[in-house]
Amino acid sequence: MQSIVPTVDDVVVASQRLGGWLLDTPVLESEHLNDLCGVRVLVKAECLQLGGSFKIRGALNRMLCLSHDERRNGVVAYSSGNHAQAVALAAKWLGVRAVVVMPKDAPETKTNRAQRLGAEIVFYDRYRDDREKIAAEIAAARGAPVVPPFDHSDVVAGQGTVGLELAAAARARNIELKDVYVPCSGGGLVAGCALALRSAYPECAIHAVEPEGYDDMAQSLSAGARRFVTPSRRTVCDALQAAAPGAIPFAIGKNVLAACVAVEDVEVMRAVAFAAMHLKLVAEPSGAAALAAVLKQKQRPAGAIGIVVSGGNIDAKLLCRALEEHPNP
Amino acid sequence: MQSIVPTVDDVVVASQRLGGWLLDTPVLESEHLNDLCGVRVLVKAECLQLGGSFKIRGALNRMLCLSHDERRNGVVAYSSGNHAQAVALAAKWLGVRAVVVMPKDAPETKTNRAQRLGAEIVFYDRYRDDREKIAAEIAAARGAPVVPPFDHSDVVAGQGTVGLELAAAARARNIELKDVYVPCSGGGLVAGCALALRSAYPECAIHAVEPEGYDDMAQSLSAGARRFVTPSRRTVCDALQAAAPGAIPFAIGKNVLAACVAVEDVEVMRAVAFAAMHLKLVAEPSGAAALAAVLKQKQRPAGAIGIVVSGGNIDAKLLCRALEEHPNP
Repeated sequence: MQSIVPTVDDVVVASQRLGGWLLDTPVLESEHLNDLCGVRVLVKAECLQLGGSFKIRGALNRMLCLSHDERRNGVVAYSSGNHAQAVALAAKWLGVRAVVVMPKDAPETKTNRAQRLGAEIVFYDRYRDDREKIAAEIAAARGAPVVPPFDHSDVVAGQGTVGLELAAAARARNIELKDVYVPCSGGGLVAGCALALRSAYPECAIHAVEPEGYDDMAQSLSAGARRFVTPSRRTVCDALQAAAPGAIPFAIGKNVLAACVAVEDVEVMRAVAFAAMHLKLVAEPSGAAALAAVLKQKQRPAGAIGIVVSGGNIDAKLLCRALEEHPNP
Repeated sequence: MQSIVPTVDDVVVASQRLGGWLLDTPVLESEHLNDLCGVRVLVKAECLQLGGSFKIRGALNRMLCLSHDERRNGVVAYSSGNHAQAVALAAKWLGVRAVVVMPKDAPETKTNRAQRLGAEIVFYDRYRDDREKIAAEIAAARGAPVVPPFDHSDVVAGQGTVGLELAAAARARNIELKDVYVPCSGGGLVAGCALALRSAYPECAIHAVEPEGYDDMAQSLSAGARRFVTPSRRTVCDALQAAAPGAIPFAIGKNVLAACVAVEDVEVMRAVAFAAMHLKLVAEPSGAAALAAVLKQKQRPAGAIGIVVSGGNIDAKLLCRALEEHPNP
């Protein structure tokens, strides 16, 4: 089941399944950003999604695909934060219990919210423990299925609805997207979006954006096979620290992704400040990574650009730090 | 011309005229805000509008109603900031010049943006000069029409499109709005919204929200005639400092507005922090005033609530101050 690679048809079905539950988040433009890039730049503001990130799309799609019986004992998830909150929220809506395995250094705003939504949190050490193993043990003990953060057909199809909506918004404005930039951790979002966007715009280049030092998708695409990175440094992008792309995202990505882009912390923090001041969006660092990739570009773009701002769950102190470090973003 | 009181039909025509130029801004919900209020709360995120506030709706509607000949010599406006930026942006789109008369203590982010959009800025002293007189003199000298910030039929009709979109979003979700809260300065936005919302929901109570000490609409409604306030203190709501409601907004408001609400600076600053952390929106204090009114409510609401978050042009320092003063908004 988990090894099935979804197609654009699965994304369309997911979109129908999720309709009514979730927001068709707005696609924003900024006069200033358009002027800076010299082309129209469409910003899919997924930080405004329920739960504060795109993660609810994949989590809810997966959980709606489970039968009542299958989800009777609740669900189990592991997550750096946003997927935890998404699973907690979907579980609340569906009236089932959720256990989420989270790193003990996850941003407080993310752990607090998952707890407030009624999830049970089990902490682990990001640099020592195997979160998948912990989750699998809990799942086996409780007879509850795991809702994985990215490496599942239903999850990738759910995340792909972001790309479907971005393509529809571009078409409504008579804009042909030439390049789309999407943050990449395990690759579920960028792979799902690529399915939807390449179906609408076959010539469109989809770029996975990763933090410097966590470029597992870039290395995997170069090698033609999944590669694991051993990070030698930390990153402000707490949600983009997967050690390797998921098998399913990579199976899609190797056929449809253009070159990857790596971004530095300082570029990401500038993008957080830019989003606040020019787009009026609160974006978390991981969520602003694709915006950072576009802002650092030196060449004039070939045509209209799409950017996914994928999440907004940032601690207030970090947001203020970004605004102080970049007073004129 | 200026004394014509618009009806909901004028709002509908304005909506058709503005279609394609502007964003139908999203109507957001937050699980946390719904839980706090015990009812569904629909937040019209007008801070995401082009130009960073609702003001572009009225300004562009007015300017599109002028003939090419009438706007040949450009336009003149006076504004505490958001209307300046809106007129500058509309003038850029229409290819005409704009002069805006702005208070010298307006937030830097507002003056900078109007200038960057190509407008010529003339500064005045908010506490001593008569900005309308200055604008009228410039208009006469240049043979250019004034685009007033609120007291004009075309402007009120344009601002009313916010209410039209909020009503449509509520209807799409099968929600009957019982109370809607809208920030109020000269009253153009709240009056226009009231026209649209009362047409859709005749029982809906529309509340004008003003800063403490600047409750000219409240005093005018009580007196049954326009009253001018002489502020005895300053307010963090730089965009809500009109001394009196406009004649046209008051003519509408006296028939359709429910009780007004006054909000303190500390309540507004908390709402700014709340919008950032829970809605992922950057709102300026004036823009968050209606949210502040809902957050301070002690009674359980009668039914679903609508809130207009009207603008997001806040200086980074003030946003950080709000987040520091209210770490758990």
